[in-house]
Amino acid sequence: MQERQTSSAPPPQPSPASGGESAGSVRSLRDALFAPQSVAIVGQSNDPTKAAGRPLKFLRQMGFAGRAYAVNPRRDAVLGERAFASLAALPEVPEHVYVVLPTDAAVAAVEECGRLGVKVATVLADGFAEAGPDGLAREARLRDVMARTGLRIVGPSSLGVVDLRSGAMMTANAALDDADLPTGRIFAASHSGTMIGALLSRGKARHIGFAGAASVGNEIDLSIGEICAATLDDPGIDGYVLFLETLRKADHLRAFAIAAAARGKPVLAYKLGRSAAARELAVSHTGALAGEDDVAQAFLADCGIARVETFEALIEGLPLIARVPARQRNARPPAVAVVTTTAGGATTVVDPLAVRGVAIAQPSEETFARLAAAGIKAAKARIVDLTIAGAHYEAVKGTLDILLSAPEFDLVVAVIGSSARTQPEKSVKPLIDSASATRPLAAYLVPDAPVALAQLADAGVPAFRTPEACADAVAAALRRRVSVAPPVAKRAPPDGARLLDEFEAYALLDRLGIARAPAVALDAAAGAVPALPFPFPVAAKVLSAEIAHKSDMGGVALDLPDGAALLAAIGRMRAAVAAHGRHMDRVLVQPMVSGVGEALIGYRVDRDVGPLIVLAAGGVLTEIYRDRSLRLAPVDLDTAREMIAELRGLTVLGGYRGKPAGDLDALARATVALSRLADDASVAEAEINPLIVRPAGQGVVAVDALVRKLL
Amino acid sequence: MQERQTSSAPPPQPSPASGGESAGSVRSLRDALFAPQSVAIVGQSNDPTKAAGRPLKFLRQMGFAGRAYAVNPRRDAVLGERAFASLAALPEVPEHVYVVLPTDAAVAAVEECGRLGVKVATVLADGFAEAGPDGLAREARLRDVMARTGLRIVGPSSLGVVDLRSGAMMTANAALDDADLPTGRIFAASHSGTMIGALLSRGKARHIGFAGAASVGNEIDLSIGEICAATLDDPGIDGYVLFLETLRKADHLRAFAIAAAARGKPVLAYKLGRSAAARELAVSHTGALAGEDDVAQAFLADCGIARVETFEALIEGLPLIARVPARQRNARPPAVAVVTTTAGGATTVVDPLAVRGVAIAQPSEETFARLAAAGIKAAKARIVDLTIAGAHYEAVKGTLDILLSAPEFDLVVAVIGSSARTQPEKSVKPLIDSASATRPLAAYLVPDAPVALAQLADAGVPAFRTPEACADAVAAALRRRVSVAPPVAKRAPPDGARLLDEFEAYALLDRLGIARAPAVALDAAAGAVPALPFPFPVAAKVLSAEIAHKSDMGGVALDLPDGAALLAAIGRMRAAVAAHGRHMDRVLVQPMVSGVGEALIGYRVDRDVGPLIVLAAGGVLTEIYRDRSLRLAPVDLDTAREMIAELRGLTVLGGYRGKPAGDLDALARATVALSRLADDASVAEAEINPLIVRPAGQGVVAVDALVRKLL
Repeated sequence: MQERQTSSAPPPQPSPASGGESAGSVRSLRDALFAPQSVAIVGQSNDPTKAAGRPLKFLRQMGFAGRAYAVNPRRDAVLGERAFASLAALPEVPEHVYVVLPTDAAVAAVEECGRLGVKVATVLADGFAEAGPDGLAREARLRDVMARTGLRIVGPSSLGVVDLRSGAMMTANAALDDADLPTGRIFAASHSGTMIGALLSRGKARHIGFAGAASVGNEIDLSIGEICAATLDDPGIDGYVLFLETLRKADHLRAFAIAAAARGKPVLAYKLGRSAAARELAVSHTGALAGEDDVAQAFLADCGIARVETFEALIEGLPLIARVPARQRNARPPAVAVVTTTAGGATTVVDPLAVRGVAIAQPSEETFARLAAAGIKAAKARIVDLTIAGAHYEAVKGTLDILLSAPEFDLVVAVIGSSARTQPEKSVKPLIDSASATRPLAAYLVPDAPVALAQLADAGVPAFRTPEACADAVAAALRRRVSVAPPVAKRAPPDGARLLDEFEAYALLDRLGIARAPAVALDAAAGAVPALPFPFPVAAKVLSAEIAHKSDMGGVALDLPDGAALLAAIGRMRAAVAAHGRHMDRVLVQPMVSGVGEALIGYRVDRDVGPLIVLAAGGVLTEIYRDRSLRLAPVDLDTAREMIAELRGLTVLGGYRGKPAGDLDALARATVALSRLADDASVAEAEINPLIVRPAGQGVVAVDALVRKLL
Repeated sequence: MQERQTSSAPPPQPSPASGGESAGSVRSLRDALFAPQSVAIVGQSNDPTKAAGRPLKFLRQMGFAGRAYAVNPRRDAVLGERAFASLAALPEVPEHVYVVLPTDAAVAAVEECGRLGVKVATVLADGFAEAGPDGLAREARLRDVMARTGLRIVGPSSLGVVDLRSGAMMTANAALDDADLPTGRIFAASHSGTMIGALLSRGKARHIGFAGAASVGNEIDLSIGEICAATLDDPGIDGYVLFLETLRKADHLRAFAIAAAARGKPVLAYKLGRSAAARELAVSHTGALAGEDDVAQAFLADCGIARVETFEALIEGLPLIARVPARQRNARPPAVAVVTTTAGGATTVVDPLAVRGVAIAQPSEETFARLAAAGIKAAKARIVDLTIAGAHYEAVKGTLDILLSAPEFDLVVAVIGSSARTQPEKSVKPLIDSASATRPLAAYLVPDAPVALAQLADAGVPAFRTPEACADAVAAALRRRVSVAPPVAKRAPPDGARLLDEFEAYALLDRLGIARAPAVALDAAAGAVPALPFPFPVAAKVLSAEIAHKSDMGGVALDLPDGAALLAAIGRMRAAVAAHGRHMDRVLVQPMVSGVGEALIGYRVDRDVGPLIVLAAGGVLTEIYRDRSLRLAPVDLDTAREMIAELRGLTVLGGYRGKPAGDLDALARATVALSRLADDASVAEAEINPLIVRPAGQGVVAVDALVRKLL
């Protein structure tokens, strides 16, 4: 709950100048973070090989233009500069303070920052939420300072924030000990500080530069979304790469992603936690709770954030993502052309592309005719193989120009063989000259070819060192959709929500317009069965708000042919429920409903990302195969149809092998209807399982429902 | 069939010296390929930038010690050396000839090689099996030369073979235009010539050297397995990396893998064709047919060949594979320790490891106690995080030594952070000093750290540039099993095998000892039902060797309660079958058999890899989810149990969520029994679907079977 208090704090506002700033200037959060006029390092050490010794060294090394002060009460000088005894002893109140002291001293320093009116304090120490009760108490002190003074905090456990243009190297990250880090137009943000070092150093090796970066640590105040959002109007930043360990404060991230999309600034993310083991580690490492990976996948996709699976694609991918427009609703499936000077090499990209579901299409007859008219010899095959035409400039450039203007393709992958190593300049020239086309081009170089890769990067041509990173980035770029994230505010699952009984749950379905089986409630103790408003056979179920898993305790009987069988079943159920120490007053009776298949639709308010809708094929096997589709709720009919198409288990209902087709349109409508619960803040969870899917045109019918809501 | 004629040719034998060799020496195939005393390049061009101009240039550049001749009838000299008008004009018969002429001229040159008694000809040209009838005719001419003269051929479509130690650069591969290629102890072989260039150039950048390499092309004679096998006794070769596009001549590859395992020489493979699209490309590229990927997966695993999914792991992985012993039958599941100087960086390896099913285990209490006794502070967590202990030599070395000797681990992954970049020598020294432990160590360096990577490679420590390649190689190493490939010779599916009717198929099951439902055959035209030897309800099915898919034409009726229903069903079936233009004489009647689940067991002789056994959970969903397990046949009971454990769909039969457990032991025994068909060369295919699995202790019962065999 503490976290939510903070996350509902008002967004940062431009605020009047304070402290030592010149009167009248309006300094933004971005300025304080990345172009501060004055900074202080509290705890700056005299030993530049230690973490606490690095910030001042790096500030000087990168030529920070503002005023930088070292605070160290135990020394008169550090690294040859004057050391001040305290923040209060400085000639001005610094705009941004990096606190590199141990945990308890760091808390005291943050309190001093608050007293003096510092705008932003970045905190290196760990030992807060992840460190048990003592850590939580320390975190409460930081929150108290913020509430009282308006101080904003980055971290704790932040390796710092840097701007390579202003030289504001407020960081203790050893991997940034490099005076020659290239400056670029990408902003990097990460929950892990180490990964900032990995991104910037590996980027340098690939001639990919960054404008700035932030290690956001535990995000007790400024979140990764807020920090990125603060830089959105920076004209020197074209796009974002994010290394995510958690979706804590997902509402900020969603708002940032929507705003970034509005400005045409792409966002590319690597999200840890594809495995349960990594999710567990994220918990112990940052104190965050981690949700299931398909929740993260749905959230990022709905926010229009491209997600890659490989770390290398996070470094190399943004130039490509930036050139591939986000997919419009109902657009035709994307198609990729592959052109190569080496068939053997091309297959190493085609294989991981196809494994990721990307369609590699054969050029149309018209396109082959254009190639032939241009004198380019290429066999009619799915890969345009220039082995015979030759790897010379005219053939490659001519082919690229034709493929990049062919209407059947959304993206062209060029795979260059040995010449990328033996004649780097010559081999990449046609790629550089063709890359300004409307459609995007991605290059993969088969041999080790650092010179050619650097030339492509310098020219802004998306290029990849490994076939897997190339395929990963291409797939992520083509999958990226226009944001459909519903504009609902973040909402926590309602506290105190309670289970409804099945009868009450049906009332909710009735209100949502979802068809369900008729039902009557009977007194479980009655010795006779009244006349039912529907024919036998029937199903009977324990009716109780106390029992969520009826079948697990013998509380369900199906296919009861007559009243006697129903009475006997009720008797057995009473005994079974009693054997579990529960009591059964009432029983719900419904007609048996048959269909051609079944599905599960679930709605819940996720702790991180808010309202979610999930669709799955029914039955135990789809549970075992984890075949489900998720989206942020509410969804519209197009999205519900996309969800149905994603489920392999529903293939059976689409007329598989001559089986009767199910009413998938009705299934889509029911999905939309249940997702509208996002408008009802009192509902925490609702699940229809099973939803019977009847033959096409005959609708769907809920035969069980479970709802948790505020009563 | 042509292919099989060749593949059944006798294996290469040491043969008496011929041509210009000194009398009495016995020259092996390996000598002729990789250390020839004399070579000729037929078609050698004077232009070293062209493919046909490269071989002589590369031979001289790498200091080939043997005698090398250029043959070019149109010039007196090439590249400053004498050019001979023909092979016959040379002062000796060369041991190995590289033919770099265009297709038709190449065929003529091979014919001349045969006439003169050349031992090996490597052929660059394409235009053979992949090029239609004309190509097949050319290929027949090459086969004719071989049959008449004993000439062995590499290719056609081979970019050549090289030995970096002898300087025998019989290659036109532009990527090998490098006088400084490092020499190592790995042999590389590939269906694609380009990928040899990629392996050697990328290996150089990673300080990983090769002893030699072969681009095997279309393998009309010497296969990838035979060429590798020829080098098995080379003391300078420690292991093999294979780039596979096809399993053509899988029997040679199997024999090589078994022989390599016997010598302790590991084999690591990258196999194209994980996607259907890439399999289709392999067909058009090399003329080979490609099987399904799980057939390749099963074949490689059963042969004890480690398979990686990423190209980078193929380059970097062998040092690790070489240190991880192949897994013994029934060994406990492997466990990995992860130690890191940066928690954030470690998770990028943990995530892809866990996605690949590798268990990252927490050290035991004893191991933590040993760490504490050594003064190393590490929290009790799944990752051993040295952030607090510090990244200094004693902490890292001490931790590695303890983890590498802890009995709970099979492998240790060390993840090194910023220090790998800022202090490369210091950061890798503890890894180098610990790597001689009994257990294997794999290193991943988080920042860009080329110097540290090179030092690790030079010291022979398995090290990886990307977290994904590290995880891929670790998973491949731990998955690699001792070879269980059955010692059967390659067998083609028997020509002329025909469908048995279901009654005949049951006789085969009876012979194999697989329980099946009782069955009687009735005359479909009879007007009455005789007394049945089993009670109603029964199932009735068309009984015909002409009809493989009975249900697709309405030829199956289930749950028939009495004789009248049976008679009526027979009438309907006759009409339905007649509507499909078929005739139905007889009907098979069986009692209905119930169980707790069902399975499919299939046996077939695969064109590439020979006898195969496949197990799948029954039903349409497991087909949709492609949930099946394959092995080379026959299998033993341990392997059958492994197969059952691999199937997610069979989880339901293991007592999932309180459901009754099925007789999985009987399922394993039936799997073993069906796999024994590998001993019967007359059976092409046998499938039991469904096999009813009854409750534990009550066995399994086949209720349908389909068999194709020679009659």
